[in-house]
Amino acid sequence: MAHRRAVTDATRILIKVGTSVVTQPDGTFALGRLGNLVEQIAELRKKSKEVIVVTSGAVGQGIQVLRRNTSKSADPTNTTFDPRACAAAGQSGMMALYEALFAQKSISCAQVLLTDDDFKSPTRRETLKGTLNGLLKLGIVPILNENDVISERKTPLRDESGAIFWDNDSLAALIATEISADLLLLLSDIEGLYNKRPDDPDARVIGLYRRKTEIIVGNKSRVGRGGIEAKIQAALSAAETGIAVVIASGYGRNTILDLMDGHNIGTLILKSTYIDEQEGPEVITQRTKAASAVLRALSSDERSKILVEMSTQIKNNTGKILEANKKDIETAEKYGTSASLIARLKLTPEKIQSLAVGILQIAQAVDPVGRIISANQLADGLLLTQETTPLGVLLVIFESRPDAVPQLAALAIKSANGLLLKGGKEAQHSNQILHQILGQAIVTATNGKLSSDVIGLIQSREDINVLLSFEKDINLVIPRGSNKLVRDIQNATKIPVLGHSEGICHIYVHSDADIQKSIRVITDAKLDYPAACNAVESLLLNKELIDDDRAFTILSALHAAKIELCATPEVLSYASSRGLTLRPLVLSFHHEYGEPFLTVSFTDDFDTAVRHINEFGSSHTESILTESVEVAKLFQNRIDSACVFHNASTRFADGFRFGLGAEVGISTNRIHARGPVGVEGLLSTKWKLTSTSPEGDVASDFTVGKKKWLHVPMNPAKL
Amino acid sequence: MAHRRAVTDATRILIKVGTSVVTQPDGTFALGRLGNLVEQIAELRKKSKEVIVVTSGAVGQGIQVLRRNTSKSADPTNTTFDPRACAAAGQSGMMALYEALFAQKSISCAQVLLTDDDFKSPTRRETLKGTLNGLLKLGIVPILNENDVISERKTPLRDESGAIFWDNDSLAALIATEISADLLLLLSDIEGLYNKRPDDPDARVIGLYRRKTEIIVGNKSRVGRGGIEAKIQAALSAAETGIAVVIASGYGRNTILDLMDGHNIGTLILKSTYIDEQEGPEVITQRTKAASAVLRALSSDERSKILVEMSTQIKNNTGKILEANKKDIETAEKYGTSASLIARLKLTPEKIQSLAVGILQIAQAVDPVGRIISANQLADGLLLTQETTPLGVLLVIFESRPDAVPQLAALAIKSANGLLLKGGKEAQHSNQILHQILGQAIVTATNGKLSSDVIGLIQSREDINVLLSFEKDINLVIPRGSNKLVRDIQNATKIPVLGHSEGICHIYVHSDADIQKSIRVITDAKLDYPAACNAVESLLLNKELIDDDRAFTILSALHAAKIELCATPEVLSYASSRGLTLRPLVLSFHHEYGEPFLTVSFTDDFDTAVRHINEFGSSHTESILTESVEVAKLFQNRIDSACVFHNASTRFADGFRFGLGAEVGISTNRIHARGPVGVEGLLSTKWKLTSTSPEGDVASDFTVGKKKWLHVPMNPAKL
Repeated sequence: MAHRRAVTDATRILIKVGTSVVTQPDGTFALGRLGNLVEQIAELRKKSKEVIVVTSGAVGQGIQVLRRNTSKSADPTNTTFDPRACAAAGQSGMMALYEALFAQKSISCAQVLLTDDDFKSPTRRETLKGTLNGLLKLGIVPILNENDVISERKTPLRDESGAIFWDNDSLAALIATEISADLLLLLSDIEGLYNKRPDDPDARVIGLYRRKTEIIVGNKSRVGRGGIEAKIQAALSAAETGIAVVIASGYGRNTILDLMDGHNIGTLILKSTYIDEQEGPEVITQRTKAASAVLRALSSDERSKILVEMSTQIKNNTGKILEANKKDIETAEKYGTSASLIARLKLTPEKIQSLAVGILQIAQAVDPVGRIISANQLADGLLLTQETTPLGVLLVIFESRPDAVPQLAALAIKSANGLLLKGGKEAQHSNQILHQILGQAIVTATNGKLSSDVIGLIQSREDINVLLSFEKDINLVIPRGSNKLVRDIQNATKIPVLGHSEGICHIYVHSDADIQKSIRVITDAKLDYPAACNAVESLLLNKELIDDDRAFTILSALHAAKIELCATPEVLSYASSRGLTLRPLVLSFHHEYGEPFLTVSFTDDFDTAVRHINEFGSSHTESILTESVEVAKLFQNRIDSACVFHNASTRFADGFRFGLGAEVGISTNRIHARGPVGVEGLLSTKWKLTSTSPEGDVASDFTVGKKKWLHVPMNPAKL
Repeated sequence: MAHRRAVTDATRILIKVGTSVVTQPDGTFALGRLGNLVEQIAELRKKSKEVIVVTSGAVGQGIQVLRRNTSKSADPTNTTFDPRACAAAGQSGMMALYEALFAQKSISCAQVLLTDDDFKSPTRRETLKGTLNGLLKLGIVPILNENDVISERKTPLRDESGAIFWDNDSLAALIATEISADLLLLLSDIEGLYNKRPDDPDARVIGLYRRKTEIIVGNKSRVGRGGIEAKIQAALSAAETGIAVVIASGYGRNTILDLMDGHNIGTLILKSTYIDEQEGPEVITQRTKAASAVLRALSSDERSKILVEMSTQIKNNTGKILEANKKDIETAEKYGTSASLIARLKLTPEKIQSLAVGILQIAQAVDPVGRIISANQLADGLLLTQETTPLGVLLVIFESRPDAVPQLAALAIKSANGLLLKGGKEAQHSNQILHQILGQAIVTATNGKLSSDVIGLIQSREDINVLLSFEKDINLVIPRGSNKLVRDIQNATKIPVLGHSEGICHIYVHSDADIQKSIRVITDAKLDYPAACNAVESLLLNKELIDDDRAFTILSALHAAKIELCATPEVLSYASSRGLTLRPLVLSFHHEYGEPFLTVSFTDDFDTAVRHINEFGSSHTESILTESVEVAKLFQNRIDSACVFHNASTRFADGFRFGLGAEVGISTNRIHARGPVGVEGLLSTKWKLTSTSPEGDVASDFTVGKKKWLHVPMNPAKL
């Protein structure tokens, strides 16, 4: 659910800026931050938002003023001035500065000083409300502050409704309620509410506060009467009246405008009934991580049993699944979703049957975990083996196809990894029911030994960014979707990402190529599925093909096959001289069409072709058409791409076609996994060293020569 | 060389802020940025730096004022006001704002308006200089601006010295020279000078301008008479008088203070004689990348020949190497470097001999590149192989040991990767001579086919951050040094990093452990080399060992072996009840001592031990001491670390001991390579698909059933 809409849609906004935002540690005003505040408010006013500011800072500034006027040499840490005197001394300077800054933006502001009494009598409350509404109507920004100069309060004031007025946070909450603000921003020196102590390296800001979430309270703010407990109290009380509250840092230069643009900054607190009681991403991740440790300890048979049960349950619940899927289809149709997307969204009894069969096949495949990759007899009685192990927890972000849920779940169980799934909103009902059925299968098959938490379903899009920050808990991210999705995720996280952002595949036709073979392969590479990442985007023709017009034969055939050839000037004039009109190439060589378009250029020779591909390609898949095995070998060695083919269509670059079983994705990374990736891409390795020497084995025995290294490689198959 | 010292040491600083910094696109003042500017200047003043500001912005502001006072409804894009009128209207408002802001920091500023005439006569120049010096002496910040109101200049003014006064950049350069400033900061909307067009995704800011570096000029600044060419001209002319000039973005909140702290921000320009003529990191990286493509195309024999020549040349140049090394040793001794560091720095004829032998061994080892890992007969006439390939370009950052240069160079050539080396300054002469000898060997062995550029030596520490931003050109970073170095590099780059930041290794003594074996293994694991990452840091004793006092036997023996045992309260009181006084554990369980200290705790049972290790360990190396093969297997499966041992010291976690040949590093990553890494860690893989079908192979044949998948795995050894 797009909870942040409560922020972006707000019209009347109350911004509370804490002392730590408004002043520097030395008590002087934080000019940069104040300037940013005023600039952001000016932008809000341009968008016709109404803005009220509750500010702190006068006391700190007053201390400065008094110190300056008493003794220049006074101990700068001396803060024994009367707080009321400080408030009096600081208030006018603060307002003067606010006014000077707002004046630069042609905005008027108005000072409103409040005391307890203003809230004690209903008449005075009404008057205050009227005044504020009047100011807002005139486009004036009211600047509110407690009149500390005459404040006598020693304990919180509690009115008949239970509302508390104690510090500027509670004052802000009270005013926000009073004037029916849509949004209350509490800006201070904390980034938001945390799941752990803020000094813990695993601490994360909670994006959406859920009542069940345990909040860990950090240290108090530097200056000011309030503190984090008071802030939470104030926030909760305002939220319960229906106001959206955000607790965020006031240090960001553009925080307010970013928040209004829907960015996931700080902690958002909404009225409890607005929040479904599902847990936040932090909690789900921790549970999946914990369950993944149990999964890792299961035997191969136990994991197979889960997969078999999953297959059975999917089949047995076909009706339920179709019912949920129908809801998604109906919603999609209502919103006029494209037919191709609906086709991907739609489940049928046949699709479900084939899903169930697919899971059974995965169950029956050889266990990829615990496979010995290498072994070495290091010394007498000292054997080293390197074995495959699960990575830990995977996060898969996918779009539309609900079939992905059981497929990915099966791969995760097979590879003994915990799995966090984030599907598209358009498939939410289908994803939910599938997730529920799979979870039940896990529990049933293991008699409750393994919790269904091992596969977590993340509902909210907002949670993705939170998840991407969990680099200690999530070991691999697999985005399955558009190039843009992959790129955005790569830029947003430190977690390794398995994916490919571009598929700019080339075919190079060598001078000795068989022309009919070439036409067949190029046509397939482009037209078999033009939107696929392994479709060819760029064709390089060796110039020797011009001599006997073989180049023209190729071009005409591709043109006749309805491939839109985007030609370099050289190719363009060659074709045109022979009566064939092609499109001019307007985009760069580094362009992925994803449509039946193909860049065509001539290349002087083999070396130029190789350089061109290594420069403009995306290291995905390239193919050479040649009758020379030697030239093909050279090409396959010198091209720096994940897949390099000879006389074969680029469309073969695919996990199933490569015989890898279910495909996890295609990677253009160089490390870990490259090209089409099967279940092996979900594994890491582990070194096991076992001593059978009667005394155990110690390194120093080898240093002093008491024991000798053997280092004999062993055949893993024979262990 | 620490060129940035020219910035950090500066006392008299001239800051020029461009129009784009001072104003927003709508012409109003950028209040946040102006506030930050004043705050930073206040900090500089606290540190007794002298500051002069040359500001733009009055014209833009004046347009605002005039627009406001002519017609509210005027087209906001209308800028047809007389610029002189704008300057007049804007100047006073600008100064008022500066004054209001500086007043908040108790700093006085002074307006100085200049015209061409002020520079035409030597007397007036002297007067101006005197005025500025006088203001600075009084602690006042002069705010300079050209008096646009009466300026009649249409072309640049050139004085007899050739200095130009044309815009505020040249004005700033002129004044900086006049008053002998140490530092001139040109702050505008550009991040610095670029190696490519700024809109090119590969564009990088050049950290240190070198005269030979090609500068690509981006678009002109948004507002203002100047532009990037004018800025460079002004910067170069000031730099040639000995002033350090920095071109940087004025948008950063703390840029000035960060610069003064030595951060590598923007482009630094120094007098040409201050810069050695070696090329910058951008150029070196591109050359190494280009050479690595040639290296990749060399045969296995050609690469071996290089290695043999390297070995010969190293041996033949022993004298030269020792001579250079002597210089490093002398410098180190002069600066009172520790004996252990000098020992690591020092080369001897024996060390050099063994280096030469080591390289020969690498030459003779099996070629790791092009090894077929898997093969699959996809269909008739369609064979798929997966082969090892080089990663591309490696960046290795290492400290002190110059032996690393030939070792790493040999591994890079063996694995056909380009290599960028950044060694410590303390070994610079040794590294340089070794690099030179190796480069010569490369050229000799290949008859110039491969350039010595394939191994690049980076001299300046400042260049590391630049290199870490080259994620398209560098494929793997290997930091060899302290935990902090590894962590800092991991945080600073998107390039995959092979390394381990922590080595918190555990030994768990199970209830059935052999006590003498346990004492032997633990002692070795701690004392063999306490500073190593594979030394044990935490000991877990099963509580059943208390019953018959086996726990006490272990503790006493370790204590007697001079291991400082840091015990939990439970262990503390147990030991003390038996007369053994241990240290209390004051640090967290997640602590790496790197000294003969060892955390000791009791653990209830096997499960608790596993959970403890998975929670507090760093997934590096752990060992179990038990006589039960079953328990050991369970431990080796359930512990989630790179290396899990049975009855063996953690010290065996090492590339040489594992039989991997030369060690590249130890990785606690889960992806790519895990644990001790040999040359295999420098490789990626590539898929080669070869069609021998007479018509070539296309994917659609399989879709329509014309061809059938076989998917028969083949034995790579038999291909």
